Amino acid sequence: MSNLELTVLEPEAVPCCPPITSAELSVEDAVRMAAMFKALSDPVRLRLFSKIASHPGGEACVCDIQDVGVSQPTVSHHLKKLREAGLLTSERRGTWVYYQVAPSVVAGMSALLDVNR
Amino acid sequence: MSNLELTVLEPEAVPCCPPITSAELSVEDAVRMAAMFKALSDPVRLRLFSKIASHPGGEACVCDIQDVGVSQPTVSHHLKKLREAGLLTSERRGTWVYYQVAPSVVAGMSALLDVNR
Repeated sequence: MSNLELTVLEPEAVPCCPPITSAELSVEDAVRMAAMFKALSDPVRLRLFSKIASHPGGEACVCDIQDVGVSQPTVSHHLKKLREAGLLTSERRGTWVYYQVAPSVVAGMSALLDVNR
Repeated sequence: MSNLELTVLEPEAVPCCPPITSAELSVEDAVRMAAMFKALSDPVRLRLFSKIASHPGGEACVCDIQDVGVSQPTVSHHLKKLREAGLLTSERRGTWVYYQVAPSVVAGMSALLDVNR
């Protein structure tokens, strides 16, 4: 047997939790998850999130997503909130900051609400 | 043929939307979905929702879910918000009101955030 087998990296841990129908949330998990849902509770913020998530290549520059009818500082404020809640990551490249969805965090929110599982 | 055939009710429509990675949310859908996420953005409200969702039989009486450290009127206020957002349904039976998760609505929120699909 070859000892050059590929190392399989563990997928990034899903932060939370079994489906909401299978177990009651702890106080700590409820605080954590409520903060994530709060990040999506504003229509403009949710649209920005959706623009980034659906952007070709899975990332968007702030320059790509300004057409939501609010000022650029407001866009920046919303992106900061989404990043602080863990739903986005960001990376500066040259002049621009690029935003990506944090897939394991968002998948964890989806799994919590997966009542058909 | 009998004209006493059962009327098959359409299953409740899944309210929204393809996964957030596949298409940008419209303004209208963003308003609608943000209101649903807002309903889960409070830790106590999220715990009440989780208690109902995970309760045996898939429903809970308000008498079953009072142990969240807030007053009964506050519990009622939170349940009203969850119902108004479409995440819960309720039914009075005798003395008590019983709450159930609205499965298609919650599944729609889950599907929206299903970034692995």
